[in-house]
Amino acid sequence: MSESNIEGDGATELTLDGEKRSRRRRRGGEAAPKKPFLAEQLPWHAATYLDDPTQPIDPDGVEAIHDASMRVLEEIGILFLNDDALKVLDVAGCDVDWDSKRVRMDRDFVMEAVSHAPSQFTITPRNPERQITVGGRHFHFGQVASAPNVMDLDRGRRVGTRRDFQDLLRLSQAYNCITMNSGYPVEPIDIHASTRHLDAHYDILTLTDKVLHAYSLGPERIEDVMEMTRIAAGLNKDEFEARPHMYTNINSSSPLKHDWPMLDGAMRAARRGQAVVISPFTLAGAMAPVTIAGAVTQQNAEGLAAIALLQHVRKGTPVVYGAFTSNVDMKTGAPAFGTPEYVRAMQMSGQMARRYGVPLRASNANASNAPDAQAMWESVFSLQGACSGHANIIYHAAGWMEGGLSASFEKFIIDCETLQQILYTNQPVPISADDLAVEAIAEVGPFGHFFGADHTQSRYRDAFYAPLLSDWRNYEAWEEAGAVWTHQRANAAWKQVLAEYEQPPIDPAIDEELCAFVDRRRAEGGAPTDF
Amino acid sequence: MSESNIEGDGATELTLDGEKRSRRRRRGGEAAPKKPFLAEQLPWHAATYLDDPTQPIDPDGVEAIHDASMRVLEEIGILFLNDDALKVLDVAGCDVDWDSKRVRMDRDFVMEAVSHAPSQFTITPRNPERQITVGGRHFHFGQVASAPNVMDLDRGRRVGTRRDFQDLLRLSQAYNCITMNSGYPVEPIDIHASTRHLDAHYDILTLTDKVLHAYSLGPERIEDVMEMTRIAAGLNKDEFEARPHMYTNINSSSPLKHDWPMLDGAMRAARRGQAVVISPFTLAGAMAPVTIAGAVTQQNAEGLAAIALLQHVRKGTPVVYGAFTSNVDMKTGAPAFGTPEYVRAMQMSGQMARRYGVPLRASNANASNAPDAQAMWESVFSLQGACSGHANIIYHAAGWMEGGLSASFEKFIIDCETLQQILYTNQPVPISADDLAVEAIAEVGPFGHFFGADHTQSRYRDAFYAPLLSDWRNYEAWEEAGAVWTHQRANAAWKQVLAEYEQPPIDPAIDEELCAFVDRRRAEGGAPTDF
Repeated sequence: MSESNIEGDGATELTLDGEKRSRRRRRGGEAAPKKPFLAEQLPWHAATYLDDPTQPIDPDGVEAIHDASMRVLEEIGILFLNDDALKVLDVAGCDVDWDSKRVRMDRDFVMEAVSHAPSQFTITPRNPERQITVGGRHFHFGQVASAPNVMDLDRGRRVGTRRDFQDLLRLSQAYNCITMNSGYPVEPIDIHASTRHLDAHYDILTLTDKVLHAYSLGPERIEDVMEMTRIAAGLNKDEFEARPHMYTNINSSSPLKHDWPMLDGAMRAARRGQAVVISPFTLAGAMAPVTIAGAVTQQNAEGLAAIALLQHVRKGTPVVYGAFTSNVDMKTGAPAFGTPEYVRAMQMSGQMARRYGVPLRASNANASNAPDAQAMWESVFSLQGACSGHANIIYHAAGWMEGGLSASFEKFIIDCETLQQILYTNQPVPISADDLAVEAIAEVGPFGHFFGADHTQSRYRDAFYAPLLSDWRNYEAWEEAGAVWTHQRANAAWKQVLAEYEQPPIDPAIDEELCAFVDRRRAEGGAPTDF
Repeated sequence: MSESNIEGDGATELTLDGEKRSRRRRRGGEAAPKKPFLAEQLPWHAATYLDDPTQPIDPDGVEAIHDASMRVLEEIGILFLNDDALKVLDVAGCDVDWDSKRVRMDRDFVMEAVSHAPSQFTITPRNPERQITVGGRHFHFGQVASAPNVMDLDRGRRVGTRRDFQDLLRLSQAYNCITMNSGYPVEPIDIHASTRHLDAHYDILTLTDKVLHAYSLGPERIEDVMEMTRIAAGLNKDEFEARPHMYTNINSSSPLKHDWPMLDGAMRAARRGQAVVISPFTLAGAMAPVTIAGAVTQQNAEGLAAIALLQHVRKGTPVVYGAFTSNVDMKTGAPAFGTPEYVRAMQMSGQMARRYGVPLRASNANASNAPDAQAMWESVFSLQGACSGHANIIYHAAGWMEGGLSASFEKFIIDCETLQQILYTNQPVPISADDLAVEAIAEVGPFGHFFGADHTQSRYRDAFYAPLLSDWRNYEAWEEAGAVWTHQRANAAWKQVLAEYEQPPIDPAIDEELCAFVDRRRAEGGAPTDF
């Protein structure tokens, strides 16, 4: 390079400051710096569904499921294994059997209560620019949550540690397509259960600045997390409680039961104005009927019962209709995801959620044990079911494996490619006269090509979705470069993303207050571990 | 096993015929016979789309593309590099420039001609039970077509041979989800080009009994294939020409050109009443404008021009609107598939095809070089675009790799899993009182599970989609069994499917007539190879 001769060896440029010197050094012949892996990722943006939802059942079918689930609530009832919840429902006029803790509620009661749930609300984390809107056509992806194990191609499969937990949070923060945290991406088993929530949420609040989730596993945990979220956002009690800054998720213990800690956490969140996702765990053929219509009926009954409770705890509590209905393999009992049944259950759940005017939650789920072809067809079908059902928040969107038993670093990177693609697809297709390009077609004519056309040259940089992980080289070039399969590229990618990760800023005074809170609560013993 | 002692050693059962003896032998202690890989595949059935199509542009957008493409036909024109075609269009009243072979046609002419194309038709192969209906909500999958290379995990990537060609046909015949042949699954390079079409179509007509495609590569080839198809179906000339028994596909030489052999083949098929798919090769940014609206506009103009020609060759010629619009990687010029652009182009193409009342063709395309995660997200997104656009025939549905440069045995098996899943999903979700399962929910109550419920027991065998290739075992069981990834399972599967393949019956007299035809045409030298 002649330029390097003119400029001289960077090492002799001693009068320049460090930054300039290192730049000159590179121009002097060293390799150019590696482009950040996420340099061309999509920007953070408020995504909305462009297409209408897919509705596999007709309005009569929606009413049939509604009616059947109302019969479940009226005739069979739901167990609320929490006396505080029973008290609320008793006062509200439900038929409460205190011995069995079974509650029957009639449809007028349920529908009146559900009518107070907002159809759309915001959740504002410590960085207000990361506020998300939940409801309508808005949609959000959260990373894998609650996996006990973690896997990557280098270290294999193992139980999760705080280091894995933190690294998965760093990936979640780095990707703009992940707009919320949906729980612990992996359980950090090396932190004692009594104080795990303190360290874990300190990590979530400092390694990310996105919306967070708190587990409903006993009063101390969710109250501690609400306090930490309040502190991190620099809010007083009233400001915190004035609108949602975080959320919790509760699962019913299907069939027909809501457990004590889940109800306790949900009611505590509701009382403080925070959002609650209610996700019955209705696997068709196991904890729910073997028919999709039956499983969705049971999901609907279990979910609406909890929504009704929460509206009587605090009118207007922001809730989300959680859909987790899938099927099991009837030969083995193993749960299956991304199946035709899952796709239809998500779309039908969307129909039910819209009937009640509440937002929908779904998941990007698969049952594969490796980040392979099965993992991807199940995941992309899951995403298709979730998005065509207009799920507003999609849990487990990146990194979920093995039906939730593992978080995979490679799958995280792979999934984010599909999430970006979905986000990109949900933009209107421009149809201006200029887009229709009749003049460009005339200019190029039958003997040219469009590479060099002005119409192309002025648009090509941003014309198309630019994938991060795809390899579109021809076979010979791909083979020459080592014939690297996608999961192997993903293996290199997550390391690069971690190396390039930048921690979001936090006010040192707030950080100090957070640490003090964690230290105090740790000294107090944290939370009981007998839940 | 006591039973083996009672029955004795199969080898001593000398009085039994072979079949019975071998069955007894197995009962006598040998391993049970391996279940055929396709034992539980979905039955052959007439699939229709359950959901409405996705329509990313509004009616004004559809009209804008229509108007722009009419301007292309009126103002810019299309090159028809075939004097017979020019003659037809000249007589029909088009503005034909014989020197440049450029034809301009006005919108009234185009729309009048297109109005004669049927919106739905059947194609009936030699086995009338394999008839397919093209149009409306019907959809069909054809296997990979026209790949020059073939790949599998054992033998790597190599140019195709007749053996590979035949094996891929056997897979296509074995899978019910493949309801049509969409061309040579791989080019059998070891057969001389002059007679390749004779041997290749003898194989297609004897190894499969499904609808077939003939290439439009010179008069001899397509005429020979029409004759062979007629002979195989046992029809006389008039019977053959009375309705479609096969089809051809032509690609425009974008931008704005239809080549001689393609036009020749299309017109020969049309004259004999056979179906023609017209698939412009409009890669946005290369052979078409860099905008999706512009590329679809050009596709629309090129396609409608050929449809108009064919309606003037023979009014009512069954045609299919072929959509192949995708984008290229603007950094390298490499074609990309399964992208957001591809998905939207397919859906918009569906809107255009329905505007004109003609069926739609799309493809299951990807640009990956291995049957890995990228291959699958691109393929499933491609299928999603095709199916949500209501494509009636979907080429390359199983086995396509590398943007069409390879046919992959493993990808074939993997793709068929996703095709089956799509077929299964397109069935109505039953919502009878019995499906809603309120009584079952009451019976099981809050303390039971549904595995043992009568409602489950009477339904579990057929309750859910049963995948052929998925491994839903938990991680430990999967690891214990060798931690076999999906592409490795697919490798074992295609060998098993080939071993279990059964050739469809053919009347020996017809087989003899076919062989005689092939021998005669081979003796005559086949077809010129200077196309």
